[in-house]
Amino acid sequence: MSASTTRPMRDRVAEFVTALQDEIVGAFERLDPESPPFKRDSWLRAKGGSGRSCVFATPEIDPATVGPNERPSVLEKAGVNVSVVHGTLPGPAIRQMRGDHQSMPLPEDLPGGLPFFAAGISLVIHPRNPHAPTTHANYRYFEICEHSTEGSEEPGKLLAWWFGGGSDLTPNYLYEEDAEHFHKTIKSHIEPHGSALYPALKKWCDEYFYIPHRGEARGIGGIFFDDLNSGKHLKIPLPEGRDGDNTLRPYSQEECFQFLQAAGKSFIPSYLPILERRYKAPSTPLQRRWQLVRRGRYVEFNLIYDRGTKFGLMTPEARVESILMSLPETVRWEYMTELGGEGTEEGKLMDAVKNVREWV
Amino acid sequence: MSASTTRPMRDRVAEFVTALQDEIVGAFERLDPESPPFKRDSWLRAKGGSGRSCVFATPEIDPATVGPNERPSVLEKAGVNVSVVHGTLPGPAIRQMRGDHQSMPLPEDLPGGLPFFAAGISLVIHPRNPHAPTTHANYRYFEICEHSTEGSEEPGKLLAWWFGGGSDLTPNYLYEEDAEHFHKTIKSHIEPHGSALYPALKKWCDEYFYIPHRGEARGIGGIFFDDLNSGKHLKIPLPEGRDGDNTLRPYSQEECFQFLQAAGKSFIPSYLPILERRYKAPSTPLQRRWQLVRRGRYVEFNLIYDRGTKFGLMTPEARVESILMSLPETVRWEYMTELGGEGTEEGKLMDAVKNVREWV
Repeated sequence: MSASTTRPMRDRVAEFVTALQDEIVGAFERLDPESPPFKRDSWLRAKGGSGRSCVFATPEIDPATVGPNERPSVLEKAGVNVSVVHGTLPGPAIRQMRGDHQSMPLPEDLPGGLPFFAAGISLVIHPRNPHAPTTHANYRYFEICEHSTEGSEEPGKLLAWWFGGGSDLTPNYLYEEDAEHFHKTIKSHIEPHGSALYPALKKWCDEYFYIPHRGEARGIGGIFFDDLNSGKHLKIPLPEGRDGDNTLRPYSQEECFQFLQAAGKSFIPSYLPILERRYKAPSTPLQRRWQLVRRGRYVEFNLIYDRGTKFGLMTPEARVESILMSLPETVRWEYMTELGGEGTEEGKLMDAVKNVREWV
Repeated sequence: MSASTTRPMRDRVAEFVTALQDEIVGAFERLDPESPPFKRDSWLRAKGGSGRSCVFATPEIDPATVGPNERPSVLEKAGVNVSVVHGTLPGPAIRQMRGDHQSMPLPEDLPGGLPFFAAGISLVIHPRNPHAPTTHANYRYFEICEHSTEGSEEPGKLLAWWFGGGSDLTPNYLYEEDAEHFHKTIKSHIEPHGSALYPALKKWCDEYFYIPHRGEARGIGGIFFDDLNSGKHLKIPLPEGRDGDNTLRPYSQEECFQFLQAAGKSFIPSYLPILERRYKAPSTPLQRRWQLVRRGRYVEFNLIYDRGTKFGLMTPEARVESILMSLPETVRWEYMTELGGEGTEEGKLMDAVKNVREWV
């Protein structure tokens, strides 16, 4: 066992997401050195923990008023958040959580709640160019413990832990090679951690990022997972008799963390090459308008269906600005828009979000 | 009893909302004769009933590219919808409704659901000028009946009925005289129908149009009510021993309908004079930006909290475009916007939405 694996998992995950944040923000800043850097914004949570938001926004630049020698920024709005928080989870919140986390071995009676720990990275990138896709990624680790012994600085006995996360792509125009690149890159990074992962998590992503009232997916998918721990997982079905086989999926805390790191590290190679080849593409006012209309769907999903957003906003003392950082800067809603019809470039995207495809 | 009062209430309400729609759309069209008229869009509901959407939208006009001799339209996006629908309400939907409609004398056991009828008008007006406020109004009538006798064209026996509605104002800049005019006009129209109405419905409006995660009201209020029928109403408290006194509130179906008509008819005089005095006001890019940021709050309320929107979107075969017609055309989300600070004109509006006031 190496020195690193003897350290508490909570510290190792916190370190990983913090380093990944620096790496990701650095990659975007190097791509667009003439634009202002991300704004770093560290915050403390009154009830325990801290975080750092790195946000890109240039509200003063309106593409309609950019002068002939000015260059609009590559990104329009982007946020890469890290939070490492702890505190007490009230009994009702734990009970509500148990529905989703069936393997959580928690006591029935929870007067006063239980200590929790959560560390995660969450990011959303909205480029300016209509041909460059929006992307989102989120990787997190959660613990629930017994109360610590009085006077001790150490957390109490670990009762439950799990990992969650994923990454997905939301283009305005369908470039099949982009969708293939995105999916292939993620798949190749996570495959060494279990051959059942990509198919199960790709399917879960398609199910999760779905807008029922529109009958369309938010984008062209990626991977999504939650509640990953050493227990049996209903969303990761395995062939008969193969439960416990760690060539199919990670089981131990260490294996799950290795997988999480691989998934997190796939973000830059899965997305940056796509952004690089699209951000300079010439675009028309109609293409910009279509981008803004599509962003409306993004907002509809995030505000109506996204569990993270809903759960976040309902949390007392939530940092609303960090939660809603995911929303695009400029958005449009048109009544019965005539854009997106069959036979148009916009229509090709509509077909891809209405009919889920395999990209690898 | 006049001839009109012998006609079924469902027909009378349908006639009223249809005439009100024409009147309101006509008033906006006369105010801005150079802009294209509202687009009339009649639709049939496969499972029973019909409606007409009247929508104003000019997606091609971008204020940034309007030529020196062109005049931007007064409205940016507006919709005035009427729907008159009927069908069968499934058992679970009725049970869910009973929570809100306590005086509904419905059978416990509802195999196959019950016939319903609903007629209403719903409108949202988003003017282009940042100094002109957004407004919303909605007036509706609902019936639940027994199944009709086989072979009969007539609806079955009426089991429950109620009226609902309201109207509210959402300015981007606080003009106290506008807020006062809006509230005073509505109050003077509805007061003859019961002196307890305005205070109770004003309070209910402030409670309903509230965005908890922002700690702010959507706007400066108006009136809001639901479940109004001949039963006792928890949201319209009356002085001890005065229950049944129709000088305080309407009770009979006829009285409630008279009140609904008065409230509906207050819309044009409550709003149009405000629009007329604001729509030509000069405005700066910062004021436009602030308007778009405030519209973000409007979207947050409608998509996260508004019961009508949520209930609508969850309804199978809902007409999504009519439900989301309420969303503004162009919207912005800024991370930790620096707009709205104390001592600014934007800050004055923030104070009004964070601290509920009496306007009459």
